[in-house]
Amino acid sequence: MSLLRMRACPASRVRRPELVELVFPALNSAWAMEVMRGVVDSGLDVVLSSATGRGTRWADDVVRAGRAGVLLVTCPITAAEERVLARAGLPLVHIDPVGPDPLSVGATNRAGAVTAVKHLLALGHRRIAVVGGPRDVGCSRARVAGYRFALGRAGLPVEPALVRHADFTREGGRREAEGLLRLPDRPTAIFAANDEQAVGVVEAARAAGLSVPDDLSVVGFDDLPAATRTTPPLTTVRQPLAAMGTRAGRMLADLIAGHRPAPNRVELPTTLVVRSSTAPPNRW
Amino acid sequence: MSLLRMRACPASRVRRPELVELVFPALNSAWAMEVMRGVVDSGLDVVLSSATGRGTRWADDVVRAGRAGVLLVTCPITAAEERVLARAGLPLVHIDPVGPDPLSVGATNRAGAVTAVKHLLALGHRRIAVVGGPRDVGCSRARVAGYRFALGRAGLPVEPALVRHADFTREGGRREAEGLLRLPDRPTAIFAANDEQAVGVVEAARAAGLSVPDDLSVVGFDDLPAATRTTPPLTTVRQPLAAMGTRAGRMLADLIAGHRPAPNRVELPTTLVVRSSTAPPNRW
Repeated sequence: MSLLRMRACPASRVRRPELVELVFPALNSAWAMEVMRGVVDSGLDVVLSSATGRGTRWADDVVRAGRAGVLLVTCPITAAEERVLARAGLPLVHIDPVGPDPLSVGATNRAGAVTAVKHLLALGHRRIAVVGGPRDVGCSRARVAGYRFALGRAGLPVEPALVRHADFTREGGRREAEGLLRLPDRPTAIFAANDEQAVGVVEAARAAGLSVPDDLSVVGFDDLPAATRTTPPLTTVRQPLAAMGTRAGRMLADLIAGHRPAPNRVELPTTLVVRSSTAPPNRW
Repeated sequence: MSLLRMRACPASRVRRPELVELVFPALNSAWAMEVMRGVVDSGLDVVLSSATGRGTRWADDVVRAGRAGVLLVTCPITAAEERVLARAGLPLVHIDPVGPDPLSVGATNRAGAVTAVKHLLALGHRRIAVVGGPRDVGCSRARVAGYRFALGRAGLPVEPALVRHADFTREGGRREAEGLLRLPDRPTAIFAANDEQAVGVVEAARAAGLSVPDDLSVVGFDDLPAATRTTPPLTTVRQPLAAMGTRAGRMLADLIAGHRPAPNRVELPTTLVVRSSTAPPNRW
């Protein structure tokens, strides 16, 4: 009986199962929770960690703590930190990678953006703006690239005034939308690079006396629970966040077991979820 | 230099710092994320775990994995499981305890509910309904008790038809609010025992053609980020969720270090946050 065995064998002498470090930029979003649930579902034992206030020696700390591997979620890593992990033989997998990281699991960000913009084009929109995320973040670049590609395929120019960037927050979305809605020839639709920004875009429209979707169509990205709570509920591109977490967890488990996974860079498919924040433009 | 030391000393032989198991009923809520951030901020190394699909032998697994302690968040524990942990010398602290657990950190749920109902009374409401959480959950019982107390202090009867219970979900809140709003003499205000339920109450009001707050005032509990995203933004009772996590983490660290914390049952204060979902009743 396992209970008796445990009593005979103090916890400190039991061989501990392998633990991996799961690092988020911050622990403050529904987005992070979805990914986290997926990672836990992969069966790995994860030690939770937030990069907020992380020192320069975090990689040393992870090695010293005896972790078996690291999952970095939208977190950059320096070459020096990577070397520390590599020398200790700790495999590293990125989730929603910030850069062109060799081992990563993300979503089809570019294709998702193309689908979002095609949806707006099919509704009849021609003046479509984008609020991208930070310029240096991989998923943000891919979403803005998808926006450009879809407009180009429709024979429409990309107007620099309609391409904005902000951090992935509601405030960022609101601020850029305020600017876009003050333009003399304002857009009839805004594609925001995440749901948080899209919520801010809807707020900016309301503050400007515009109705969503009658005066402005809005599309988000992620499909967080909040996307169904806005008024109106958001049309958005769903990322399979939990599935990304699970896939990354399994990839890391393979690496820990000494198997090289193939392929090394996985992109899981996105899907457009059409709700009530998009409609044909009322003036064109 | 720590890097060189690590290379000379393989990770598997390094003494691992103590790890505690942090168990949530499920990893699917902004509520859980707030608590989690607080626990991580306490400085403990936490291994994340979800009680969803947890087997009957989870306590054995935790002992076998060599954890130094356990944090249970709104999770019941059987006497048998408690014995397994106690025999292995693993301290256990409850966060937002389900029952009268000896070592726990929660919030002033009863006082918070009293404040919420007093706010509605001060606005002039007399027919105030409550949507409580599950009947067997400690925080839910305390919130409904606070509702009863505040009405009693105001000399108002507690009408059984105005006291409902549902699980802590938006759907639960919507369903009970639908029933309340169909009453011949419907309430002019509903106090929901959490923000998720309150969002459902607002949805039910809208579906019934009622305006919030003109026709119905709504108060929630928690003050999750979602409370500011509803239309209108929710008046709610703020629980210091992150602070509860941090306090529980420190209490567990004390226990692991062999100190008995005093007091054993901590309740951190709640505060009423008045936003736009409450107003004087338009008919009284």
